[in-house]
Amino acid sequence: MITRFDRVAVELPRPSAPNANGAAAVQELMGGKFGELSTFMNYQFQSMNFRGRDAKHARPFFDLIANIAAEEHSHIELVGYTINLLLTGTSTRGTDPSVAPLDGTEDNRNTLHFIASGQAALPVDSMGRPWTGDNVFSSGNLKLDLLHNFFLECGARANKIRVYETTNDPTVRAMTGYLLVRGGVHVVAYARALEVLTGADLGKLFPIPDISNKAFPEAKALEDQGLHRILFRNNPQDYTRVGEVWKGKHPEDGSELIVQDGRPEGAPPPVLEEEPQLTAPGIGAIDDDTLREILKRLEA
Amino acid sequence: MITRFDRVAVELPRPSAPNANGAAAVQELMGGKFGELSTFMNYQFQSMNFRGRDAKHARPFFDLIANIAAEEHSHIELVGYTINLLLTGTSTRGTDPSVAPLDGTEDNRNTLHFIASGQAALPVDSMGRPWTGDNVFSSGNLKLDLLHNFFLECGARANKIRVYETTNDPTVRAMTGYLLVRGGVHVVAYARALEVLTGADLGKLFPIPDISNKAFPEAKALEDQGLHRILFRNNPQDYTRVGEVWKGKHPEDGSELIVQDGRPEGAPPPVLEEEPQLTAPGIGAIDDDTLREILKRLEA
Amino acid sequence: MITRFDRVAVELPRPSAPNANGAAAVQELMGGKFGELSTFMNYQFQSMNFRGRDAKHARPFFDLIANIAAEEHSHIELVGYTINLLLTGTSTRGTDPSVAPLDGTEDNRNTLHFIASGQAALPVDSMGRPWTGDNVFSSGNLKLDLLHNFFLECGARANKIRVYETTNDPTVRAMTGYLLVRGGVHVVAYARALEVLTGADLGKLFPIPDISNKAFPEAKALEDQGLHRILFRNNPQDYTRVGEVWKGKHPEDGSELIVQDGRPEGAPPPVLEEEPQLTAPGIGAIDDDTLREILKRLEA
Amino acid sequence: MITRFDRVAVELPRPSAPNANGAAAVQELMGGKFGELSTFMNYQFQSMNFRGRDAKHARPFFDLIANIAAEEHSHIELVGYTINLLLTGTSTRGTDPSVAPLDGTEDNRNTLHFIASGQAALPVDSMGRPWTGDNVFSSGNLKLDLLHNFFLECGARANKIRVYETTNDPTVRAMTGYLLVRGGVHVVAYARALEVLTGADLGKLFPIPDISNKAFPEAKALEDQGLHRILFRNNPQDYTRVGEVWKGKHPEDGSELIVQDGRPEGAPPPVLEEEPQLTAPGIGAIDDDTLREILKRLEA
Amino acid sequence: MITRFDRVAVELPRPSAPNANGAAAVQELMGGKFGELSTFMNYQFQSMNFRGRDAKHARPFFDLIANIAAEEHSHIELVGYTINLLLTGTSTRGTDPSVAPLDGTEDNRNTLHFIASGQAALPVDSMGRPWTGDNVFSSGNLKLDLLHNFFLECGARANKIRVYETTNDPTVRAMTGYLLVRGGVHVVAYARALEVLTGADLGKLFPIPDISNKAFPEAKALEDQGLHRILFRNNPQDYTRVGEVWKGKHPEDGSELIVQDGRPEGAPPPVLEEEPQLTAPGIGAIDDDTLREILKRLEA
Amino acid sequence: MITRFDRVAVELPRPSAPNANGAAAVQELMGGKFGELSTFMNYQFQSMNFRGRDAKHARPFFDLIANIAAEEHSHIELVGYTINLLLTGTSTRGTDPSVAPLDGTEDNRNTLHFIASGQAALPVDSMGRPWTGDNVFSSGNLKLDLLHNFFLECGARANKIRVYETTNDPTVRAMTGYLLVRGGVHVVAYARALEVLTGADLGKLFPIPDISNKAFPEAKALEDQGLHRILFRNNPQDYTRVGEVWKGKHPEDGSELIVQDGRPEGAPPPVLEEEPQLTAPGIGAIDDDTLREILKRLEA
Repeated sequence: MITRFDRVAVELPRPSAPNANGAAAVQELMGGKFGELSTFMNYQFQSMNFRGRDAKHARPFFDLIANIAAEEHSHIELVGYTINLLLTGTSTRGTDPSVAPLDGTEDNRNTLHFIASGQAALPVDSMGRPWTGDNVFSSGNLKLDLLHNFFLECGARANKIRVYETTNDPTVRAMTGYLLVRGGVHVVAYARALEVLTGADLGKLFPIPDISNKAFPEAKALEDQGLHRILFRNNPQDYTRVGEVWKGKHPEDGSELIVQDGRPEGAPPPVLEEEPQLTAPGIGAIDDDTLREILKRLEA
Repeated sequence: MITRFDRVAVELPRPSAPNANGAAAVQELMGGKFGELSTFMNYQFQSMNFRGRDAKHARPFFDLIANIAAEEHSHIELVGYTINLLLTGTSTRGTDPSVAPLDGTEDNRNTLHFIASGQAALPVDSMGRPWTGDNVFSSGNLKLDLLHNFFLECGARANKIRVYETTNDPTVRAMTGYLLVRGGVHVVAYARALEVLTGADLGKLFPIPDISNKAFPEAKALEDQGLHRILFRNNPQDYTRVGEVWKGKHPEDGSELIVQDGRPEGAPPPVLEEEPQLTAPGIGAIDDDTLREILKRLEA
Repeated sequence: MITRFDRVAVELPRPSAPNANGAAAVQELMGGKFGELSTFMNYQFQSMNFRGRDAKHARPFFDLIANIAAEEHSHIELVGYTINLLLTGTSTRGTDPSVAPLDGTEDNRNTLHFIASGQAALPVDSMGRPWTGDNVFSSGNLKLDLLHNFFLECGARANKIRVYETTNDPTVRAMTGYLLVRGGVHVVAYARALEVLTGADLGKLFPIPDISNKAFPEAKALEDQGLHRILFRNNPQDYTRVGEVWKGKHPEDGSELIVQDGRPEGAPPPVLEEEPQLTAPGIGAIDDDTLREILKRLEA
Repeated sequence: MITRFDRVAVELPRPSAPNANGAAAVQELMGGKFGELSTFMNYQFQSMNFRGRDAKHARPFFDLIANIAAEEHSHIELVGYTINLLLTGTSTRGTDPSVAPLDGTEDNRNTLHFIASGQAALPVDSMGRPWTGDNVFSSGNLKLDLLHNFFLECGARANKIRVYETTNDPTVRAMTGYLLVRGGVHVVAYARALEVLTGADLGKLFPIPDISNKAFPEAKALEDQGLHRILFRNNPQDYTRVGEVWKGKHPEDGSELIVQDGRPEGAPPPVLEEEPQLTAPGIGAIDDDTLREILKRLEA
Repeated sequence: MITRFDRVAVELPRPSAPNANGAAAVQELMGGKFGELSTFMNYQFQSMNFRGRDAKHARPFFDLIANIAAEEHSHIELVGYTINLLLTGTSTRGTDPSVAPLDGTEDNRNTLHFIASGQAALPVDSMGRPWTGDNVFSSGNLKLDLLHNFFLECGARANKIRVYETTNDPTVRAMTGYLLVRGGVHVVAYARALEVLTGADLGKLFPIPDISNKAFPEAKALEDQGLHRILFRNNPQDYTRVGEVWKGKHPEDGSELIVQDGRPEGAPPPVLEEEPQLTAPGIGAIDDDTLREILKRLEA
Repeated sequence: MITRFDRVAVELPRPSAPNANGAAAVQELMGGKFGELSTFMNYQFQSMNFRGRDAKHARPFFDLIANIAAEEHSHIELVGYTINLLLTGTSTRGTDPSVAPLDGTEDNRNTLHFIASGQAALPVDSMGRPWTGDNVFSSGNLKLDLLHNFFLECGARANKIRVYETTNDPTVRAMTGYLLVRGGVHVVAYARALEVLTGADLGKLFPIPDISNKAFPEAKALEDQGLHRILFRNNPQDYTRVGEVWKGKHPEDGSELIVQDGRPEGAPPPVLEEEPQLTAPGIGAIDDDTLREILKRLEA
């Protein structure tokens, strides 16, 4: 069960310009094999499916996976709002269809943004292909699931790096910079879990791929504030033992890993203007009398 | 953003017997076109994608969709734990692979439960096909999205009815009985939203399909307690205006619709025994010395 | 454009018994790669897409493909009704869900027949996988399209043979027997088209696979009546020149190929009983007062 | 069973210019989730699968669905010919491959139009993804199927609106204008069916999305002629009772709904020039001697 | 480029009995996400795509991946022949279709084995779903690709273990026993590669999942012969430097890792009897005169 | 079993310029329905699945299919290297992500080349859709499989022709020219096999589509050297009887068909430069100290 909050994980600046193909590319971080839907769903299923989780030796690993799942939900929203901001204004605003307000959108890479959605995010990747449950790995074996998660986060990191590199847009960079840091926490967390479970030392594997978060100015700024050291204990009552895994030194810069109770503070979600040419949401195209009636019924 | 709680929406009794094909059938309510992943993801995307949501006439509809999304998350977990309980004990427990502990599982309909997962839920339907983002509809037009959601919930209701009818198993019946009632709330909620938005009267359409929740003993018991009248305001601070839509009389029995703040109380998640023949989770197969080392590293 | 008639291509006897897995197998002939949806859609697209069709040398080939498309539509219906007949009575009839009327259906191979449909056909194959547009080949090159069609019909023939061999059921055998003969006509028709187009002699390739229609009693009975010699000119006004291809001797038995104007006479579609446990269609579960109101509204 | 006619539903003007990406976008109306393949196949399956259709209270609904299916077939062809016209001339005509006649086509959004087909329509959507049987809903419950169809037609309407808005091209506008009107008839027809079945009044829901057909000049012209008031009784002998549902006033402009026997008159299909660089169809590239031999074989 | 040999990697005993559902389960090791098609294709693509491979520090890693790809090809064949042996004799042999020789096969889990193939292997998984290119990971980053491969081989190991556990059948056990050993070599090889590349020590991670190959009698017998210590240098001229990675001690039993030039000796492929009821291959159903003509044409 | 060689089938010139969309188009020849993965996998499965292959009348057909499979493997590599060469240099080289080195790549048709791979080939088609096992046909009936293969090769030929026509690029033309000739050999080989098996004469069907290889300068040059007449006996010891099928005259130019033992000589694979902005492979971005350590570990 969850309580949902109308906040996003980090404040998103407005894009430098509307950018339909940029939005199409960012979809990879939403619905791609290594996108946020994948991380969220993997940990959601692994936590539900965890057998023998109440065993003394097992519980901290359950707590870790369940707890990270909760943070991934906020990453879905962060990527979603980024896509929505990039798509805002990508066609001609107005209520008259006969002026061809979507002229030119047929040349964009993801036509579903204009035909299926109202210039908004969809659970698809950068090729417009839908996210699929095939992306979920939940073998039931803890060590194998942790290894999977470690790989998944490294793959996700590579995708974030590459999407970052496509653009100077401030929204995309703020989002990917933040996710590189927070995803980086999850990379380390699963490595730590494997280390605690087996005694192996994975520290020398970092970073995967071979480029540091510090090379990304937006990520570096957040790491300078220590955001890469913090595991947020989403619900301190229920996932109490995450600190038995998340502890010690960060493998890349040797800083101390710390557990912080509660969610990140976050920010209000960005405002998404109406796009009347897509009747999105349609309220704006309604005459005043009808609006009054709606209001009357709402207030009834 | 969410806070996650280690609770399930309603207490689940233990199954009358392990039941692999029963679990395979219940997967339809997880990963089917009309399963809980679909309802959750549809409302998640529609709420992120809602343009112009801060307009006076629009906000209650945003609040409603965003709020219902939060409840759907708990339904994923309820279905997941049902599947996991049904799969518990469906093969021979033990750590010796040479006795063919999975003998006979190759005749089960969903072999992925034994090969891909550790006798646990996957994001697939009753045919073992993965859930797909194609199941998400988010047109941006409020009226059309509400109509979709109304249809989606009616389709989901049909699926729950049919899965209910496959079995006398108490776990499946407790789960489907509960979901018929709560899904029934969502059917009415989206109908109410369409009514408030347009002035139409959809009351005579109920029930879809043509059979009342009262015909299902487990659902009737909950409706006798009034559970079908309550919309849980998941987060009273953020989704404040849901009551402007959820109000008036229930179209089927004329009872008063009420908004209740907070999540349902729920129950602790059921215990899932280890399945060592699948090394799920593997802790149980580890020798005592190694266990001690793990514990030492946890406590370090 | 089409005119549709409420007839099926050949009279279907009732099945010897309800047979859910038999129905699942027959789905291959509906939604499989070589099923009737494939033949219909291939020829439908090839006829719409035919470039330069009015050229003197090209038109008879267009006529042939367009004309066969029309017959394939009736094959979809024939397979559909066969599936529906097999599924009739495969669960316990009644309106009380609490007696678990679908008990046991979770062991059937295609649970979608009971959850997604009302014990009725779906556009899926024998594994329950949906038919897909990937099954359509329409290269634009006439010779290559004809070669494809020849291969497609041979593959379809192999599938019909194998479905036939699964059962003694009279409905399945009547349907497959009929389709072996009519599909056999299409095999020969596309071979003839290639011969007329290129001058090659394909006669010695028959039959593919290496077994004659005469080995199937239900097919032999129809061939004894000459049904394998007839190409039905679906619309004599519009597809006039099919006889320039369909002429000469049948490559297997040397009988004369003939063109016959109009559709086959066909038979009334079989009656499909209601399945109230699936509220299919729901009318039967409605009380008398409501029924009267429906009637009143119909007659208004 | 069907009789097929070599006519299209409405006359299509030639495009203002060849337009490969325009064709790619129009594919959404062919093979998209809400495209004409979906409407056709949904009603085709629902009509075959209709249980208890001969009951007095049920038959008009069967007639309606079966009858609309027949009209949808003509919409497939209308969209197909539009795509084919747009693709005509999008590469360099000629028979010499060494001049790179397809140069530049690798930048088009749908390369399958040039590699898989001969610059012609495919059963795919605007992203080039194949139509799938997953798009068919056939629950067996009449009320639920009608609700689905109502939603499907509203979703299809949204897609037509958006494709219309992409362009000033006369072919696309003639096609979408016509389909908005005829699809609009189907929206109303399924709403009427729900009203007759349940007594609900859905009139105030219109239009979905919130924009009238009258805002589209090409649609308005047809509605001025009353085309939105007419249900064509495709086969007056077999689908006799459609008028028990299609009657009363149009919910948007209050005009009288009328049943008209027979198909729309339609128009001859447009001429599709050969594209020799794709050997489509290949006849044009053949030397005179060979053509003479083909002709001789045709005339033999 | 390859030279192909008509040998299989290890001698396969005949199955204890025909076993259609057993064959369906083994398909997971062929076309599943972690099946042999996946390992083969992943390494095939990674080796073709390896940028900068001739660098002194990079070449041994290229050699390793390219070399292992070659061995995976033989694993495809080993799994394929196992499936084919299990399917041999699963229906009634004969040439008369009217005796329903496939009776009962419609209850088998994978009907494609009887309809699409001639009781033989297909590139599908244990649910009959096709292998897909989505299973290939080729990021271009060496460290990430190696991590992927290490995970892939561990996942594949889990699948082999679980398939082994379904049965006592000697063919399946011989095959899985062999693949556990050889796949185990690849697990270690990719771990070694990561160690050599980064200096990390992954030795304590083994085994993943938490069960030793020694627990499987057929695998233990082969490890007792040292088969788990050998990397076969498939082509000593071209993949010369694999020994710079494959060296040192085996992480589980401390034995010395050795490179052996050439392929394993292997064994002749098993004999697959004809299945005339499926006309597979059809030669056996042909009359003597025709056979003589075929022979004449072969010898011409 | 195979021995793999680090050679490509023919020398590939460097592209005239980096060309991302060109690479996307060439992917059709890799992972398209008629791409090289399809030909390879079809013959691989058909050869493993061949029942009764040791019969005197059957063996030459097995030898042929198994032998051609081996050559197809080299075609995968040829297409792969072509894609990799075209993608080399399509973004800005360097190790600083903050300069947006992938700027503009979001407009390319296949973003997976930049996000999922390191500017390198993937098992997908020209629309970025993954190759699927659905592309494999292996019915078990020899005649039907041969007919399929004949059609498959003709379809593949059409695709090669069309990809050739998109460009003047020397790499693409060298590759397609070579494959037109070698694929042409396979077209003839399967036609010959059908002729030997049945006695039919398929000679007049050629060429399919209606354009000769001689019209393609790069193909013509190779045919002038006789490359279209040669079947390479990949392994003379194991596939000895291919010459009983591959013999007689070439159907197009009447030249003598000959069997040549061994693989084509081939050429060294092209050099693929590093792309450091994608950390592909990452070695180049590593500091000298670390490189020295890697070398030390390699040489240890």
